Amino acid sequence: MANPQSAIRSPQTLAVGGTIAIDNVKTPEAEAENLLGGSAAYAALAASFFTKPVDLIGIIGHDFPAEHLDMLEGRGISLHGVERSENESFTWTGEYHTNMNERTTHRVGLNVLESWQVKVPEACRDAGIVVLANMSPDNQLEMLGQMRNESAFVIADTMDLWISIANERLHDVLPKLDLFVLNEGEARDLAGTTNLVRAGMLLLEKGPRYVCVKLGEFGAMLFGQANGGEKHAFFRSTAYPLEAVADPTGAGDTFLGAIAGYLAAQGSGPYDFGMLRQAVIQGSILASFTCEAFSTKRLEALSDEELADRIEYFRETTSW
Amino acid sequence: MANPQSAIRSPQTLAVGGTIAIDNVKTPEAEAENLLGGSAAYAALAASFFTKPVDLIGIIGHDFPAEHLDMLEGRGISLHGVERSENESFTWTGEYHTNMNERTTHRVGLNVLESWQVKVPEACRDAGIVVLANMSPDNQLEMLGQMRNESAFVIADTMDLWISIANERLHDVLPKLDLFVLNEGEARDLAGTTNLVRAGMLLLEKGPRYVCVKLGEFGAMLFGQANGGEKHAFFRSTAYPLEAVADPTGAGDTFLGAIAGYLAAQGSGPYDFGMLRQAVIQGSILASFTCEAFSTKRLEALSDEELADRIEYFRETTSW
Repeated sequence: MANPQSAIRSPQTLAVGGTIAIDNVKTPEAEAENLLGGSAAYAALAASFFTKPVDLIGIIGHDFPAEHLDMLEGRGISLHGVERSENESFTWTGEYHTNMNERTTHRVGLNVLESWQVKVPEACRDAGIVVLANMSPDNQLEMLGQMRNESAFVIADTMDLWISIANERLHDVLPKLDLFVLNEGEARDLAGTTNLVRAGMLLLEKGPRYVCVKLGEFGAMLFGQANGGEKHAFFRSTAYPLEAVADPTGAGDTFLGAIAGYLAAQGSGPYDFGMLRQAVIQGSILASFTCEAFSTKRLEALSDEELADRIEYFRETTSW
Repeated sequence: MANPQSAIRSPQTLAVGGTIAIDNVKTPEAEAENLLGGSAAYAALAASFFTKPVDLIGIIGHDFPAEHLDMLEGRGISLHGVERSENESFTWTGEYHTNMNERTTHRVGLNVLESWQVKVPEACRDAGIVVLANMSPDNQLEMLGQMRNESAFVIADTMDLWISIANERLHDVLPKLDLFVLNEGEARDLAGTTNLVRAGMLLLEKGPRYVCVKLGEFGAMLFGQANGGEKHAFFRSTAYPLEAVADPTGAGDTFLGAIAGYLAAQGSGPYDFGMLRQAVIQGSILASFTCEAFSTKRLEALSDEELADRIEYFRETTSW
């Protein structure tokens, strides 16, 4: 890999593992191919708005577009942990329907992911914040097993597929987490209740210190273990009001990465509930940009000023 | 009617018109019959938490339970405008399913509503705030036509049925409104777009000064006409996090009535966007109580202190 990171690490160093994909996306308005996709690609890019360097851990094939790698490196993302395989890259081909909340997956090419075993380079193993973006619970456990900063803050996402086919392994991951992020439907499924507040509380009982339930256009709910008191900590945020959604792919991964990046920028922790609140807001706002263009295009063009302006607008339109 | 109101009115006097029903409700947990229901009954009761007296305008049959009328009067709601018919009362019989967001209507007995023509008593015609709770647009126009305070602040709700079968008449109502309140699905239908932010803006173009889109467990969006500037006013609130919902019937009507009652308590207006924000919060919180028991049972038992505590908790758990 070009631009390997130096071995000097501080506790707030950030390692993001997960998938790196080639996406082909169709919406009612347009379609595009050979786009940058994958949970870790979005999350690392999102984190880079708040902290640098970000170590990206994943695997790509021989056919992976060089322009995507160049873009990530240009954003201060280290590709030292990105394994190159002789096989083809992981690809996702899907289509969004009129309301943009429903999508159909037309084809998944697992390819390099089929026999992937996560390898974390020596230089990335002391990261102070570890992001296990959406990948199989086996891969998440592999990655985490190689990290050696025992006080690292560990954040993980998941998806409906793993709740269905790797439920036990996912339950092995949960007690190891500081923050578990998942969407509304996944929270209901995994907790076994339709009530989202109860779902959040039940998920806390599975081990994570904090649980964040993503609600898409309706924001997010953040739950924290009760701190001596009777009642768990709770925070509820809305989402930025988008007048149009071009492509929601990666919004959840952006949310995840922004939370991690924001926390990393706060130093070595511990990260209290107040910091987590702020992180959720940053994640929510950054994710709104992701929805405004295909793939990472809007994030790539995003200035710090635009991000700050949107957070200010968000504050104005949600305070009372 | 017992307890007729005095004819002395101040501008913030409140008249609430709509349906008064006998509800029979089944949920996965329980069922109950002969409950107080109807859009105006809930809205008037909700308003009574903030202002008194509240004039209730509607129609009931000979079979209407006296205990419901007694309860309303006990809350400071004047029944002077409640017409008594020799026919049977309007009834709704329905069932909620596991997730409580879906319901099946088993039977609607229109009865007294079939040929109802709204009659507003002389003493109620000068109200400073007029609430057209959910009833047919014809009934809404009839009621509004009898009100004679030209500077009255007019608030209306609607339902999917009227959007389908009385769309033109509903469009006759809209330009006469200061605040139009409707739920998410209704907003999408009436505006003809799946995007809720665009829907809110398109609904403003139909005439109301303010539009509020109810999102159930996800809160509400409030839109206001642009005030000289390019961009419309906007406010986004979440909802109180309920761990269990016993019966959501009337939550939307409670929201509506609380907004009206809160504004009435602020005096004679004008009601600016900041006041509307506060009103939406009050409505959202009061509606959360409605969901906690069948019919109006929880509201009947609610103390001012419990309401204030929940608003305080809501502030704590949504600020950042």
